Amino acid sequence: MSDAQRNVVIVGASAAGLRCASRLVRLKPDWTVKIVEARKAFSYGACGMPYVLSGDIPDLETLHKTADGDVRDEAYFAQVKGVEVLTGQAAVGIDVEERYLEVNDAEGNETSLPYDDLVLATGAWPRHLPGQPDHPRVVTFHTPADVKPLHEGLARGKIGKAVIIGAGFLGCELAEAFTALWGAEVTLVEAGDAPLPGLLDPEIAAHVARHLADNDVELRCNARVAGIDADDKGVTVRIEGGEPATGDVAVVAVGVEPAVELAVAAGVELGPTGAVAVDDRLATSVPGIWAVGDVAETRHVVTGDPVHIPLGSLANRMGRTLANVLAGGADRFPPVAGASALKVFDLNVAATGLTRRAAAARGDAPRSVWISAHDTADYWPESKEIFLQLTYLPDTGRVIGVQAVGEGEVAKRADVATQLLARGATLADFAHLEHAYSPPYAPALEPLAVAAMVAENQEAGLEALSPSELCGGLEIMDVRHPSESEERSFDLKNTAGIPLDTLRDRIDDVDLRPWVVVCERGPRSAEAVRLLQTREVTAVYLGGGLRWREMATPEASESKT
Amino acid sequence: MSDAQRNVVIVGASAAGLRCASRLVRLKPDWTVKIVEARKAFSYGACGMPYVLSGDIPDLETLHKTADGDVRDEAYFAQVKGVEVLTGQAAVGIDVEERYLEVNDAEGNETSLPYDDLVLATGAWPRHLPGQPDHPRVVTFHTPADVKPLHEGLARGKIGKAVIIGAGFLGCELAEAFTALWGAEVTLVEAGDAPLPGLLDPEIAAHVARHLADNDVELRCNARVAGIDADDKGVTVRIEGGEPATGDVAVVAVGVEPAVELAVAAGVELGPTGAVAVDDRLATSVPGIWAVGDVAETRHVVTGDPVHIPLGSLANRMGRTLANVLAGGADRFPPVAGASALKVFDLNVAATGLTRRAAAARGDAPRSVWISAHDTADYWPESKEIFLQLTYLPDTGRVIGVQAVGEGEVAKRADVATQLLARGATLADFAHLEHAYSPPYAPALEPLAVAAMVAENQEAGLEALSPSELCGGLEIMDVRHPSESEERSFDLKNTAGIPLDTLRDRIDDVDLRPWVVVCERGPRSAEAVRLLQTREVTAVYLGGGLRWREMATPEASESKT
Repeated sequence: MSDAQRNVVIVGASAAGLRCASRLVRLKPDWTVKIVEARKAFSYGACGMPYVLSGDIPDLETLHKTADGDVRDEAYFAQVKGVEVLTGQAAVGIDVEERYLEVNDAEGNETSLPYDDLVLATGAWPRHLPGQPDHPRVVTFHTPADVKPLHEGLARGKIGKAVIIGAGFLGCELAEAFTALWGAEVTLVEAGDAPLPGLLDPEIAAHVARHLADNDVELRCNARVAGIDADDKGVTVRIEGGEPATGDVAVVAVGVEPAVELAVAAGVELGPTGAVAVDDRLATSVPGIWAVGDVAETRHVVTGDPVHIPLGSLANRMGRTLANVLAGGADRFPPVAGASALKVFDLNVAATGLTRRAAAARGDAPRSVWISAHDTADYWPESKEIFLQLTYLPDTGRVIGVQAVGEGEVAKRADVATQLLARGATLADFAHLEHAYSPPYAPALEPLAVAAMVAENQEAGLEALSPSELCGGLEIMDVRHPSESEERSFDLKNTAGIPLDTLRDRIDDVDLRPWVVVCERGPRSAEAVRLLQTREVTAVYLGGGLRWREMATPEASESKT
Repeated sequence: MSDAQRNVVIVGASAAGLRCASRLVRLKPDWTVKIVEARKAFSYGACGMPYVLSGDIPDLETLHKTADGDVRDEAYFAQVKGVEVLTGQAAVGIDVEERYLEVNDAEGNETSLPYDDLVLATGAWPRHLPGQPDHPRVVTFHTPADVKPLHEGLARGKIGKAVIIGAGFLGCELAEAFTALWGAEVTLVEAGDAPLPGLLDPEIAAHVARHLADNDVELRCNARVAGIDADDKGVTVRIEGGEPATGDVAVVAVGVEPAVELAVAAGVELGPTGAVAVDDRLATSVPGIWAVGDVAETRHVVTGDPVHIPLGSLANRMGRTLANVLAGGADRFPPVAGASALKVFDLNVAATGLTRRAAAARGDAPRSVWISAHDTADYWPESKEIFLQLTYLPDTGRVIGVQAVGEGEVAKRADVATQLLARGATLADFAHLEHAYSPPYAPALEPLAVAAMVAENQEAGLEALSPSELCGGLEIMDVRHPSESEERSFDLKNTAGIPLDTLRDRIDDVDLRPWVVVCERGPRSAEAVRLLQTREVTAVYLGGGLRWREMATPEASESKT
């Protein structure tokens, strides 16, 4: 960029656009920076909207304020940030040769805004289902205007039963919002075989499914929507080859699509994800046009492939990076791991990197390990459980993904893992990760490091059976204390009880049959497998132990004796 | 190492020694591995001992058990881990030529244990003060045996008043234990000018000092102990140039010293810290002798210098690494950042890397920034405050340390920062750090990244005044709303109130005098300074804002109107 005075026009007063503008006017106080925004209301913390519905956050206005209580409106951005936001102005076309943006106001008056640099921060639209009817009972949940009808419907008892289509981030958050505060019945319809299919592998997703069931959400997986019928009385969501789901309202929460209309019309190239392709300076294929936020692609830190990850945190950072780039700085937007977290009732869910499934679909041969751990020292009275999966490529030892779930602290583990993934870390790097140890905050051995050690052991021959693969027909050795086996029995036959502290003495009598060794959390059964292997007995242990299985199996709770 | 069968003797059944032995017998089932331990009781989670005193943990035995409830005694290690622990056996000498260890049992019987490899895991001793009297009222707190007398004294009301010498980790934890559960009066005596001087710079330490005062601990800094007098009636701790501190007991908590006696006698070289010098394979200067845990040095990830960091988490990892090395693996023990966390009453404290003081003492020219932030989205109802300092070297942009304190989640920030410090990360790397964003877990802009951005801005001319440097005599501009300034006034004169949203219009009337601009948390005053600088007005803003100052100043709470 030249240092001469420039004229920057930004389309979209979203997180990315506002951030870019605010920083640019600081870096280049003499430049002209304008934001064009079609809506009148803007700068709502959209990620907080489900929590308005759930009552965790008192009202939408809370999401529209700074931490100091200032309302983020045109006057605020003008007075405090020095940024001009033109609301009610829809960008309708770009003349890429002459460099001006065509804008229509609500009355249909057209104006042209010349630019030196045009920033596309147009965000994303909620995806619709094919043939989705245009009816007030069939809604999406994307803008502040979407909150009020649902809130009123729930508050007035007009929505007593809802069908939510899509068990992704939003679908899971809405399922909680509908049931926890309002006591509505919810059917959560998911085309994939488990909730959060883009984020989680089945072993972790099973915890979410169990927790949704425990909280009275009817989760229907492998359920493809054949069509939606809506009338004055309610909605019927037809399911391919299954019973229809009915309710007072259907919320379509099947993801978002980048709002690329303006970009496409101007000849800006899209990437393979359908979002705008950008380089690491956030430049598009058209000179003078840039893209940030949910409309733009990023690159995945593990695969290097283009990905579309619409997250407010990335949008914010892209906006800042572009301001630095436009101002002539050397800043570049680095690849992303897709670190994510969400709360589903009392369950914390976090993940980063690739799922094992996604890696396998790319032709890799990933493997996983599973651990059941405590988030603090196990003896700390407020210690809570977490269940963590680590996925890696055996040929290089590179860790490609971490997923964790539980009542305990899991977002921390995703954040730490993200820094390591971004730097190509191997199992050895994870095994050596340093953490701030103190009984109230972490165990002496950080669960992320333990998982890496378990994976190293797996590569040395100590193999874990996936917690979702324990089933009848296997020969099971339970190495827990007899009292534990009695108190917390499980539903599978063919189980021999050989407590670990007796195994060493009895080992010569153990059959050579292939065993699946189980204990409460994993370490003791792994220890037993080691011992068995010294006598040539074939054995694997149950990854994550019986505790994982119990917490991830809806029926298991009823089979307790 | 050759793959031939070897004979390994480990001195000390501590975290490091036990971990090393347990892994080694797995990796090399045919080798002979023995641990020699002078005490009868071993494998207590020593880091949890203060919490037994505070009642957070019911009894010492809890610290002696696995997460599955198994007692970690000789039988457990023999049966479950296959490790032989010889207790009550004091290692008294090493014949380095013939390679055997001389051991005395309690009855004075001497035996010789031949070894191929000898592992020193002898731990550390509590440091004593010069001339410290040998009296039951003058105690240290290091082994399980130290817990009972204090616990009984407190429970029976015989300890109503205590002097704790040293406001480090242990001293702060004990201050809480004595007062929170038992209501004892505590005087906490610290030679440095603030609590936790090895871990924290003064700006963060001031929060700890304030919190200790709020919890009725009498903290006396800059207080050097001249001597301790003890008799049947109590103890008197004499302070150089000050009033003596008196109590029923004095606990000396002035750190630990590596237990190097055996090493020194065998001619093993010590490093500059006084601990055993080891290379990254954990080998000492004497062939066949290795050292792990609190007796050994490590290297600092920022400076590359040898450091002595006695932490259970590092000890554990050193033990595992050495097992890998002895078994012929390529494992190496990497440098450490000294990531640490502790709970002081309701305040969470965490730090990693170097303090600004320590860096300055090495001849570097470090700078810091300070931010007051929320640990989740600010609108999340369970959001809590954190106060974070980031320290960096301006010439390279390298981040060298992060410290954080507050009721919110700070250990996460230390853990994430540790991964970045270990990889030489710069401010730009921190500004780009990816995190799992969701309102219940983190703000859209992670505080660590915000701090790095603030530091980048500082290097671009937007300078922060240290929160401990705001004082009378400065010309202060308060840019908060008038209602805020009225509700939360402060005690300094020379204050002009110019709300930020009016500053742009009034800017031509502002005096050119050097200003310190203040607001509640920092961002608005920084914004104001930017604006002032466009008119050549000289100004800095108060780092962390008035909220930092309020939470870090004992008197400030009383000056509220």
